[in-house]
Amino acid sequence: MEAARKTTPEPRDGGSGDNQMRYWRLDKRPRVEIEDDCLSLQTTPIPVLAEGEVLMRVIYLSLDATNRLWMEEIENMYMPAVPLNTPMQGFVLAEVAESRNPAFKPGQIAMGLGHWASHVVTDGAGWMALDRPEGVPLDLAFGVLAIAGPTAWFGMMEIGRPKPGDTVVVSAAAGAAGSCAAQIARLKGCRVIGIAGGADKCAWLKDEAKLDAVIDYKAENVAEALTRIAPDGIDILYENVGGDIMDASLANMKLGGTVVVCGLISTYNGAMGGDAGTGPKLFHNVILKRLRIQGFVVLDFMDRYGEAWAELIPWLRSGELKFRLDVADGLDKAVDALRSMYRSGNSGKLMVKIGEER
Amino acid sequence: MEAARKTTPEPRDGGSGDNQMRYWRLDKRPRVEIEDDCLSLQTTPIPVLAEGEVLMRVIYLSLDATNRLWMEEIENMYMPAVPLNTPMQGFVLAEVAESRNPAFKPGQIAMGLGHWASHVVTDGAGWMALDRPEGVPLDLAFGVLAIAGPTAWFGMMEIGRPKPGDTVVVSAAAGAAGSCAAQIARLKGCRVIGIAGGADKCAWLKDEAKLDAVIDYKAENVAEALTRIAPDGIDILYENVGGDIMDASLANMKLGGTVVVCGLISTYNGAMGGDAGTGPKLFHNVILKRLRIQGFVVLDFMDRYGEAWAELIPWLRSGELKFRLDVADGLDKAVDALRSMYRSGNSGKLMVKIGEER
Repeated sequence: MEAARKTTPEPRDGGSGDNQMRYWRLDKRPRVEIEDDCLSLQTTPIPVLAEGEVLMRVIYLSLDATNRLWMEEIENMYMPAVPLNTPMQGFVLAEVAESRNPAFKPGQIAMGLGHWASHVVTDGAGWMALDRPEGVPLDLAFGVLAIAGPTAWFGMMEIGRPKPGDTVVVSAAAGAAGSCAAQIARLKGCRVIGIAGGADKCAWLKDEAKLDAVIDYKAENVAEALTRIAPDGIDILYENVGGDIMDASLANMKLGGTVVVCGLISTYNGAMGGDAGTGPKLFHNVILKRLRIQGFVVLDFMDRYGEAWAELIPWLRSGELKFRLDVADGLDKAVDALRSMYRSGNSGKLMVKIGEER
Repeated sequence: MEAARKTTPEPRDGGSGDNQMRYWRLDKRPRVEIEDDCLSLQTTPIPVLAEGEVLMRVIYLSLDATNRLWMEEIENMYMPAVPLNTPMQGFVLAEVAESRNPAFKPGQIAMGLGHWASHVVTDGAGWMALDRPEGVPLDLAFGVLAIAGPTAWFGMMEIGRPKPGDTVVVSAAAGAAGSCAAQIARLKGCRVIGIAGGADKCAWLKDEAKLDAVIDYKAENVAEALTRIAPDGIDILYENVGGDIMDASLANMKLGGTVVVCGLISTYNGAMGGDAGTGPKLFHNVILKRLRIQGFVVLDFMDRYGEAWAELIPWLRSGELKFRLDVADGLDKAVDALRSMYRSGNSGKLMVKIGEER
């Protein structure tokens, strides 16, 4: 992560003043929700590039559940909190607008940890220049390949290690990482059960993502549904939610099962920094069922993204991997769009379109 | 476990009436503590053996934290609850008193899942006849080799997988499994920190078990002590306790660390069957620190006991592995002795001496 952090210098003065950039500044750390006074939209001149620097014109901003955590000072967090009074950080897809760095040529597409901003100045560390993937629209490629797809792929393949015929449960299965994880398991020959909230998401998982079974947690008792649908138990749980939803699955694990802990979104609003957090009530099943419960952070696998892409890109191209984008239009919408995620208000991968594709 | 269960037929009538056996009968399932009306001492005639059966005269009964769980109907438990109105079950060391089974000869020592009883009639399934281990007293051999030693060995070696130089933390380190686990890690070249309650236990861990550091949870803040003693973090946590003690260690794990979940004794009195259980508050560290948290039950390794014994017996003989026995005298004492364990009242492996060694 150190390398990635170097890619997010603050906006600074020094530009001509003719060219302005806009960005969301983190003014205050959220307490529970992301309150209205936490972020504000700012305008500043685009600075003159120093030797080695690149000016990225942002096209898409990825919104991810973990962004909420970056706003807080959390002990042992996998990266330092975004400093107050600096631009909010996020993964972005951008076009190289100007470059004084030989690794990036104007007009190229690049991806990296940038800002909630119209432009990012970076020394290029932690950024990758990309070929436009043939046969896959740019928004879809970014939506899948930046975070969600590799998160799903490494979590499922490296930690879950599915075997054909395994019963796999994915929570938040209609979410970005969840929908990829569920379909990866399906493409690897597993029987896949998705947990999601609402008829629309469940219908998409059944009809488009072709899961074997779907449980609507808003309409059904999840533990009972799992007992009915997976009477022999769950081999692999790919967990995105935590809390009661996770307990429902823990109650139904097979002896020797695996729990891939990708996210615990039900606990992210305020609980993680303090002592209000509660672990799974059925934690003792780790013994009774001899479980392996293992967490990961996709950033650890950044130097191996190519392995994930080698499977994901052909699946996207062939249409075997379906993916829903939920694109907010314009930088102004970023905060509201992220908030909607914690209310399950999004249907598909949340992104913000900030600039035009060219 | 199925095989082991076959070894515990109920006492039945049919003996001459001259020879009586005594046993603790489970009359009622405990609610929270093991209340006074849960078990009662019974006397019954020793039955005449059927073909294939063996009469075991019990010498030692092992008391283990998990015994409390066997008294309750717990969903997904690793073995069925002890049926009401039958003898309470436990691991015992016995002498073959009579045999109509060619695998067991009168006078031989044997070990298996038996009863809290003076005698056990079994078909021999799940029992092992033993050679008296040379140079190791029988009570010590039973105390280490029946449950505690293999539990420690398989948990540490198969799940923890220590490397020389690793920082290893063991909770309930003065307990039976804990003291073995801590010393196994030490003998494998790790730096070992034990957590225990009270000056006596801590002194024993330091002076006799030769741990590198000891934390008295009754006298110190465990999380702060761990931060001070293991500033670079914990590679392997061997957890016997759960609750706040486990959280103190979870706060101090190294990135990519391993948590071996051997027991969660702080949660056993009443919480496991209901919904009163709470998992570790710092469960989200499974993601932030990319932990592997894995549980096990030693009974799964019964057919591999020899691997553990091959290291444990020489260590016992040479004195490199120290072990404290806490032996209650007489079957009458069994219930009170088990209760003392949940109050940390024992100092060393709890056993009940039921019959004489000959």
